[in-house]
Amino acid sequence: MPTISNKGKRMPASPIRKLTPYADAAKKIGRKVFHLNIGQPDIETPETMLNAVKNIDFKVWAYTPSQGNASYREKLSTYYNKIGYNITADHILVTTGGSEAITIAMESCLDPGDEVIIPEPFYANYNGFACMAGIEVKPIPSYIDNGFALPDIEAFEKLIGPKTKAVIICNPNNPTGYLYSREEMEALKALCLKYDLYLFADEAYREFCYDGNKFISPMYLEGLENHVVIFDTVSKRYSACGARLGCLITKNKEILETGLKFAQARLSPPAVAQIAGEAAIDTPQSYFDKVISEYTKRRDLLVKGLNKIPGVYCPTPGGAFYVVTQLPVDDADKFCQWMLEEFDYHNQTVMMAPATGFYANTSLGKQQVRLAYVLCLEDLASALQCIEKGLEKYPGRTTS
Amino acid sequence: MPTISNKGKRMPASPIRKLTPYADAAKKIGRKVFHLNIGQPDIETPETMLNAVKNIDFKVWAYTPSQGNASYREKLSTYYNKIGYNITADHILVTTGGSEAITIAMESCLDPGDEVIIPEPFYANYNGFACMAGIEVKPIPSYIDNGFALPDIEAFEKLIGPKTKAVIICNPNNPTGYLYSREEMEALKALCLKYDLYLFADEAYREFCYDGNKFISPMYLEGLENHVVIFDTVSKRYSACGARLGCLITKNKEILETGLKFAQARLSPPAVAQIAGEAAIDTPQSYFDKVISEYTKRRDLLVKGLNKIPGVYCPTPGGAFYVVTQLPVDDADKFCQWMLEEFDYHNQTVMMAPATGFYANTSLGKQQVRLAYVLCLEDLASALQCIEKGLEKYPGRTTS
Repeated sequence: MPTISNKGKRMPASPIRKLTPYADAAKKIGRKVFHLNIGQPDIETPETMLNAVKNIDFKVWAYTPSQGNASYREKLSTYYNKIGYNITADHILVTTGGSEAITIAMESCLDPGDEVIIPEPFYANYNGFACMAGIEVKPIPSYIDNGFALPDIEAFEKLIGPKTKAVIICNPNNPTGYLYSREEMEALKALCLKYDLYLFADEAYREFCYDGNKFISPMYLEGLENHVVIFDTVSKRYSACGARLGCLITKNKEILETGLKFAQARLSPPAVAQIAGEAAIDTPQSYFDKVISEYTKRRDLLVKGLNKIPGVYCPTPGGAFYVVTQLPVDDADKFCQWMLEEFDYHNQTVMMAPATGFYANTSLGKQQVRLAYVLCLEDLASALQCIEKGLEKYPGRTTS
Repeated sequence: MPTISNKGKRMPASPIRKLTPYADAAKKIGRKVFHLNIGQPDIETPETMLNAVKNIDFKVWAYTPSQGNASYREKLSTYYNKIGYNITADHILVTTGGSEAITIAMESCLDPGDEVIIPEPFYANYNGFACMAGIEVKPIPSYIDNGFALPDIEAFEKLIGPKTKAVIICNPNNPTGYLYSREEMEALKALCLKYDLYLFADEAYREFCYDGNKFISPMYLEGLENHVVIFDTVSKRYSACGARLGCLITKNKEILETGLKFAQARLSPPAVAQIAGEAAIDTPQSYFDKVISEYTKRRDLLVKGLNKIPGVYCPTPGGAFYVVTQLPVDDADKFCQWMLEEFDYHNQTVMMAPATGFYANTSLGKQQVRLAYVLCLEDLASALQCIEKGLEKYPGRTTS
């Protein structure tokens, strides 16, 4: 029997999904499991988008151009220009989910052995995509004490060597919910110009900024045009994760030309999703106002509720729909598993994502979990209660 | 400005799409261009499938499981068992198009520097996917004289070294249309067992076999269970290329476990396509009978028509919807471009795919083109006439 690849052996399993068998077992014995572990919102997809699917009128479900339908790219550019990106349709490469934007950017810009710096905790699948491309991830810790703000620029500079080619940020951040300030973005700009690094910005959660805080894209920063690559997706903006529709945006022509070759190899992004995505641009602002108001309430409920539990600390994030919170436990991996295997409160329990999956240096996240506030207020309140009661009973509870 | 990757520079552009600017220019001046260059059929997608799209009834367009919806995998397994594959849903990993099945298999089974042997001419994007994974393609020529039959096993053995890990076949073949016989498949089996190689079989065109010839999958060959990986797609079977829905099938558990990690990184295959794909399994046999009868007529018209043109030789393929034909020209790349730039017959011309794009050794295909018979008989007849008239006028015509 031939052997699988070493790359395949190194490839990380999803840290978000690894507890699934325990959740399934809990459900099998009749327990209600609140899923705060994944970023699958319960928010309804806009009707404009679903109706576009229902109203398809083609007879042949054909390939689209590899870079995406011209009409979709054109309309997408109006969306981006409304938020100040100052681009044309030619700066957009339509991808199969934000995931593919990440892989195409990595493959186009970095060779095996090249290095990318990422503040941690970070979106775990960056590890998987880096592994596929043979790229080394150099993590740089951010800390819960200041809400996971951007690490000092000096800490970046210490990591930069001849193989360093890019920095990745996710803004607002998954998993921390941290929203980078203009000052932080300007500092990143200076860094990338000084060392001639690409700045990859994952903006999947752009729409979800709270408390009137302003979202700052590196697309707003002059002089960085050839350095910036944006990863975007309709998944969270329109609660349409299953559409698998994203895009890569850059003003760097070399990346666009190179990325197109990777896009041509896989032929085309999904056709129906593009039709729906085009219609989605007409989603009224009232949809987003309602969603943002809902997420704000959920965040407030969750953060306040967590901080009331003895020994728990949770900073208030400025965006996205995640928090990373500190728990008074010996080992969050064990605690999360225990909650599914051993615990219930009125026959209910919670599935959480241990933060170790989001750190390269796993000792850093040992007492932290990521919670996604993707459930309605009522369920969120019940989930909070489960966490509180669980922490009271958990045998590995620490006093601090 | 940071530089793009060497991998990005090496990544091949699509040979099928590279003449597109010339076709666009021809259309701009009012010429009708018959597209025989790409495998985008004009055949209608089954209504069962399109209706499933129109009838979606979810409110949240959510992620599906990374391995695909359980109900879709279950139903897919009934399709495969009907054609004798003897598998369960657990042997199926649902992918984003057949393209992703190829990348996941390559990444799971081969490391950078490992080698894969492929009879040429071959589907050009294998080159791109191999480039992405850092894999070396070792081509082995097949010849037009015997209709592009499987090369002698001795020729394979000469290429096998310590880095050889897999053989890829496409059956029925794109670009040649050749359908491998049971004897050829048995010979491949013996080879793969002798040298412990994976056998990757791209079966995108499985449904399209003509003249009563039997399709032989390596899934039918006992003792090869841990060596075989099938790439499949709904693209051609249901003329649904834009759905981007495929799958990887194997009985090798290590590959399934490893492939799932790559699938988890990209989260989920397209959701609506899976709903449609599930419905498509109920497409009545009459749909395929009609399509196969249509393709047979087209193939016969094209092959007969080509062989009537002085200096042209075209073997009769047993499957798929492509032919590779020999033309009396100095350079098929130049001829294809000339047809678009300089030539018209009654204001019509033809776009073809120069065969050099399907060969690693480009001198082999210098007088060959691939034609896809994806147009109706009437258009195909007009296209044939254009080719005949074009060959009469082409300045680089050879006598042989």
